[in-house]
Amino acid sequence: MKKMKSFELLKKSGSARVGILHTAHGDIETPCFMPVGTLGTVKTLSPAELIEINAQIILGNTYHLYLRPGIEVLKNVGGLHKFINWQKPLLTDSGGFQVFSHSKLRKITEEGVEFTSHIDGSKHFFSPEKVIEIQQIFGSDIMMVLDECTPYPVEHDYAKSSMDLTLRWAKRSKIRNEGRGTEQLLFGIIQGSTYKDLRKESAEKTVEIGFDGYALGGLSVGEPNELMYDIITDAEKFLPENNPRYLMGVGTPEDLWECVERGIDMFDCVLPTRNARNGQAITSTGKINIRNAEYKNDFLPLDSSCGCYTCKNFSRAYLSHLFRCDEILGLRLATLHNLTFMLNLAQRIRESIKTENFRQEKKNFFDKYTR
Amino acid sequence: MKKMKSFELLKKSGSARVGILHTAHGDIETPCFMPVGTLGTVKTLSPAELIEINAQIILGNTYHLYLRPGIEVLKNVGGLHKFINWQKPLLTDSGGFQVFSHSKLRKITEEGVEFTSHIDGSKHFFSPEKVIEIQQIFGSDIMMVLDECTPYPVEHDYAKSSMDLTLRWAKRSKIRNEGRGTEQLLFGIIQGSTYKDLRKESAEKTVEIGFDGYALGGLSVGEPNELMYDIITDAEKFLPENNPRYLMGVGTPEDLWECVERGIDMFDCVLPTRNARNGQAITSTGKINIRNAEYKNDFLPLDSSCGCYTCKNFSRAYLSHLFRCDEILGLRLATLHNLTFMLNLAQRIRESIKTENFRQEKKNFFDKYTR
Repeated sequence: MKKMKSFELLKKSGSARVGILHTAHGDIETPCFMPVGTLGTVKTLSPAELIEINAQIILGNTYHLYLRPGIEVLKNVGGLHKFINWQKPLLTDSGGFQVFSHSKLRKITEEGVEFTSHIDGSKHFFSPEKVIEIQQIFGSDIMMVLDECTPYPVEHDYAKSSMDLTLRWAKRSKIRNEGRGTEQLLFGIIQGSTYKDLRKESAEKTVEIGFDGYALGGLSVGEPNELMYDIITDAEKFLPENNPRYLMGVGTPEDLWECVERGIDMFDCVLPTRNARNGQAITSTGKINIRNAEYKNDFLPLDSSCGCYTCKNFSRAYLSHLFRCDEILGLRLATLHNLTFMLNLAQRIRESIKTENFRQEKKNFFDKYTR
Repeated sequence: MKKMKSFELLKKSGSARVGILHTAHGDIETPCFMPVGTLGTVKTLSPAELIEINAQIILGNTYHLYLRPGIEVLKNVGGLHKFINWQKPLLTDSGGFQVFSHSKLRKITEEGVEFTSHIDGSKHFFSPEKVIEIQQIFGSDIMMVLDECTPYPVEHDYAKSSMDLTLRWAKRSKIRNEGRGTEQLLFGIIQGSTYKDLRKESAEKTVEIGFDGYALGGLSVGEPNELMYDIITDAEKFLPENNPRYLMGVGTPEDLWECVERGIDMFDCVLPTRNARNGQAITSTGKINIRNAEYKNDFLPLDSSCGCYTCKNFSRAYLSHLFRCDEILGLRLATLHNLTFMLNLAQRIRESIKTENFRQEKKNFFDKYTR
């Protein structure tokens, strides 16, 4: 029996698309921004707050959750949703990126990757199959295959052989997930660094294996923005229209406009939350750092056009005070605001596509927003 | 024109009392526990959450708020309520205790106290008058006089001369606040360390000056609990029935029962919030430390008889995970629970007095609660 189609493409405007992704824990309107909850918590916020600001889906990370709290706890409690009290969709990254960025000692073989924990130096091994099995225990609505994420820049030769390995791992991942009659979706990851020939080959062969969605991995890892945009424009041609496209680890407000325009449906990025904790707020006129002296006596909200709890109730002066005093409420309020900004932005982008007004709205946005 | 009476004594049961304290920002039912918001934030929580858990009043601290954000900012914004977005009653401590506990270099004279900032070492001077003026700028519903808080143990001679100074400062504070037609209440502070003769003298002379309420200061500073209880039992005799009595910096759940029984109406303490941030939760069966290994696989709530957001939605296992990962949500959830516990406990104590059931309820509490 063929699975019901998980993605519905509702509208296109140029390459920009609006769609609905159906998951076991509800529907996700795309384009969407997904808040990152690496360790099973979107840092500083409660699930109730995430619901309040209309987060449709959040991320967890396989590498981190495998190390803490560990598979045993997540098996015992009956999955990640229950553990963290989140009833909406969850996507878990495979941990490929984290193994390569956090673990100093790692050994890649055909079989998988051996790595040391960044917490206690203990040795662990991820195979593509094991990563699927872990995510099955999590009960993630969207699982990601294990991939090798290459740094930037990287030689063509290495990028090619790495991409080939990621393809073989993708096939093994697909096989391990077959026949379970599961409602969990599985996304493939396209690699190939900044080489268009490799991105084309990776896209075509990943699509040939067949996944519920396709991610672009290995971007926003240090290359110039324009190069990333160019790679996306090119790779998009080889992606099937009727599957969601997920640009991993991206991005900024600018990136959302630029990449939706190039056909991307899903985004995740730690910057809105991480920057918030450093006192950097995203506003409709650009970024501001709340620690700057000018805000000590500024009784306006962070962003006068924002309706979040932070902007409705507190001034820049109060936030500035909280940050100067290292008060946790400051981290919370800035995080809540930044995520509200990103989620509202995705909503605004969706509306602009639906009303065939994308280009004008993009211009309106950048007329106010200082990069 | 005589001021309307700010305190109504509704019911007595032995020395335990239920009353209502009227302030410019609303009524407070006593006995009450007041969450501490030293720097204009009850650490980790939002004002909305404090409302949700029925906090009737919170504290701010004159010493800390004078240093950060400073008087200028609080004057510009129109007071502390507006700055921190708290519409309910606010009590501000005078900063006497903080000057003596945080500032290494301080010089006490008849005029006041010179001290150095714990932040940048800058020199400052508090006189009793200045402390009133600062609290007038704050717009605190309840202001505290500047006092000298003696450590424990202290010689009778020093305790006596310090108490005399506090009395002279109290008189100057009263004078500085006279004739303003203000709705701000002013509380005197009774000192005298653990010497009953001094406590008696301090109480009688402070009452003679005349304040809206009377605080017992300089307790819970290292003396044995039984000694503190004994001092309170004795001092209570010299306090007028128709004014609220506030035991500063106390206490634990045990202290609430013991001291309400001895005639205390108001409490504040940093322990429920500070301990929460160290992973220690107060439950109806006693304290637990959520970092203990036994909670890693414990899927019960912190306290099954608690209805707070934390207990309704999250397990000990999840809290244990959050604390192990240094996630801020853990600090928030534990703080929310501990304050809910203390506020509910005060509510339970009030009910038991109203229904003339105090002694039985106290026994019921300690039958379950392990000290």
